[in-house]
Amino acid sequence: MTLLPPGASRSARVALIVQKFGGTSVGSIDRIRGAAARALATQRAGNDVVVIVSAMAGETNRLLKLAADLSPMPDSREADALAATGEQVSAALTAIAIQAQGGKARSFLGHQIKILTDSAFMKARIKAIDAQRLHETLAEGTIAVVAGFQGVDDDGNITTLGRGGSDTSAVAIAAAIGAQCEIYTDVDGVYTTDPNICKTARKIARVSYEEMLELASLGAKVLQIRSVEVAMKYSVPVHVRSSFSDAPGTWVVGEEQSLESITVTGVALDKNEARVMLVGVDDRPGVVAQIFGALAAEGISVDMIIQSPSAHGSVTPDGARDKTDVTFTVGRADLPKARVLVEKLVADVGARSVRYDEDIVKVSIVGLGMRSHAGVAARMFQILAAERINIEAISTSEIKISCLVATKYAELAVRALHDGFGLGAKP
Amino acid sequence: MTLLPPGASRSARVALIVQKFGGTSVGSIDRIRGAAARALATQRAGNDVVVIVSAMAGETNRLLKLAADLSPMPDSREADALAATGEQVSAALTAIAIQAQGGKARSFLGHQIKILTDSAFMKARIKAIDAQRLHETLAEGTIAVVAGFQGVDDDGNITTLGRGGSDTSAVAIAAAIGAQCEIYTDVDGVYTTDPNICKTARKIARVSYEEMLELASLGAKVLQIRSVEVAMKYSVPVHVRSSFSDAPGTWVVGEEQSLESITVTGVALDKNEARVMLVGVDDRPGVVAQIFGALAAEGISVDMIIQSPSAHGSVTPDGARDKTDVTFTVGRADLPKARVLVEKLVADVGARSVRYDEDIVKVSIVGLGMRSHAGVAARMFQILAAERINIEAISTSEIKISCLVATKYAELAVRALHDGFGLGAKP
Repeated sequence: MTLLPPGASRSARVALIVQKFGGTSVGSIDRIRGAAARALATQRAGNDVVVIVSAMAGETNRLLKLAADLSPMPDSREADALAATGEQVSAALTAIAIQAQGGKARSFLGHQIKILTDSAFMKARIKAIDAQRLHETLAEGTIAVVAGFQGVDDDGNITTLGRGGSDTSAVAIAAAIGAQCEIYTDVDGVYTTDPNICKTARKIARVSYEEMLELASLGAKVLQIRSVEVAMKYSVPVHVRSSFSDAPGTWVVGEEQSLESITVTGVALDKNEARVMLVGVDDRPGVVAQIFGALAAEGISVDMIIQSPSAHGSVTPDGARDKTDVTFTVGRADLPKARVLVEKLVADVGARSVRYDEDIVKVSIVGLGMRSHAGVAARMFQILAAERINIEAISTSEIKISCLVATKYAELAVRALHDGFGLGAKP
Repeated sequence: MTLLPPGASRSARVALIVQKFGGTSVGSIDRIRGAAARALATQRAGNDVVVIVSAMAGETNRLLKLAADLSPMPDSREADALAATGEQVSAALTAIAIQAQGGKARSFLGHQIKILTDSAFMKARIKAIDAQRLHETLAEGTIAVVAGFQGVDDDGNITTLGRGGSDTSAVAIAAAIGAQCEIYTDVDGVYTTDPNICKTARKIARVSYEEMLELASLGAKVLQIRSVEVAMKYSVPVHVRSSFSDAPGTWVVGEEQSLESITVTGVALDKNEARVMLVGVDDRPGVVAQIFGALAAEGISVDMIIQSPSAHGSVTPDGARDKTDVTFTVGRADLPKARVLVEKLVADVGARSVRYDEDIVKVSIVGLGMRSHAGVAARMFQILAAERINIEAISTSEIKISCLVATKYAELAVRALHDGFGLGAKP
């Protein structure tokens, strides 16, 4: 049931398993019974089991709605104390469910096993976990049920790890006690692309941490991206799988355990970007830094950045142009804020005009194999060209190539790339 | 608004007030806003304020119902971790509400201000409170909002104090920081008797701790009785009042601050007792101890005990009878368990027969003044006799006289005693 992935270096008698159940997996009394049964079966198969639970589906939203009814901007410390109750309820109920099925279980909160975080409420980062109480609990044959999503800071304030933070709780606890980690969710793994867009999408058996990070738009639906960073840092094997079946899901593992021979692992689509084009910016040192420095100061993340000589400049004596066009993308939610900033900068940077475009999407192919396979980018451009899809911008990293295309081509581009790189075929 | 009772020894600049809001007083977002407004107004009037909150009305039941759906007898440690979330939610929301109204507030849980209890889950008793964090919070002009009902034991497990435990939290915290305590609830004070039974019932302005304890059946509706014991032990003045008005409620205070001149303070009715009559028990040493020892061993509390010579015995050579009748009352809920025990004892103690009677109630008059006023008991019996109410049994304490009467006379007895002792008249 919880086989290690091929090539895993841990011994077969490892018997230390963290099982995380997401909101839908504990979304009702019946589902909690199901999660309890699974944990108990895993224990009875000879493993020590730590269970991490999210809040029952909808509960976090219900709680935060109460806060929102009181204040348009509730204090983040109080919002965390409020939201953390959701996981506390799930943890106690899951422990009760395990006991009702004849098992031994005890629930733990962030402050009880010292999940120490910084004090960045609503997006805290784990600094340390005191594994001793967990080890003691496991040693007496008890299943430890830990409330996910929450921790405590140095002053004993309750913190939360941000949306999806229970995944990070699970991986961090697995790292702290040297366990492997199973993430039970309402989908059965990570797919080569969104099955709603592309019918030939397949479940990926194994994916590397690095690929998973680049596949964020596919992976974020099943696994909080930050948890992948933690898993990578501590080499925790993570098995993402369905709580409604026993079928294996997707293993997220170290590079050495993944299949290097595959060039492209998945095709991701990101519909949440917006493009900003500054036309005819002065081409002098410091101008670009001025633009992006201003955005960074406001906490706006910039994704793609493309700079090219502008058609609006004059040719300088040495043959260069004195004007440049600067294009970048920001999260669509950040566009209004970015717009205000950019409007103020237009005169400063000598821009002739500025345009904004929300009618674009980002299509990306991701794969470790790209590093050793030449011509992947060229193949991507050919596939898009064959569908007469114009590429608006390109950016590349070591294991990812992204193209901006018009929104109307989004699904077509995904399907063309998915099948063009042979992802639909059986591996 | 929060005047000290006449005779209070604390100085007028005390300015340290604990305000406890019960479930109905924080039962909705609007009510939470109201509680926040009251706390803030109290602070702005120059006081340091600590707020204690219960769970939103109905929430504790909702949570325990979830546990009951999973197990007929949920583990008490887990039930406490579960139930404690109700107060955590209220505390965070109340802090947010105070902030939304322009105040400074911070919520605290049992483990954050070290409300240290024993490990008797679901009925824990407070051993100590670390007042330092509260003092620090108050010193910076912040309202401390504390989750009631909960504490932590030495191992950091979450404990709860039993139904109504938030009252005890409030009084204990008031004792720890040297504050007076306001209990906001959905009634406006303690009455001379149940207003539903007796239309002339009046709100009592001041009542002593001792009287309040004896008036349990009246007082329990507004104040957890255990909190009165704590208030008495630490001389905390408690003001029970309505959260829906500014009218003064009832002060529960030390004897020296109450009105000794009043003979009878209130008339209480207890419909939850049942009578057990053992007829013709052997009148020899150890028999009575055997009966009540057996009941105590099963945790059955006995209230009234009456022993009298039995008509079924023979007169012994020295003129006494060799048989005695033993009558006692137990809580009606305990009767089935008591019955099983008594049936086993009948032969051992030589009893001729045993009868059980649930068709009785206990009517009590309570008042500190009884100690110095002779003839109060006689007056009580006269009042009942004038209404042709037969007294089935009598028991007395220093400040209370109780009579068992047939259930059908319950309301009549209450009204007769209430008006007979002049409680309906303006004081």
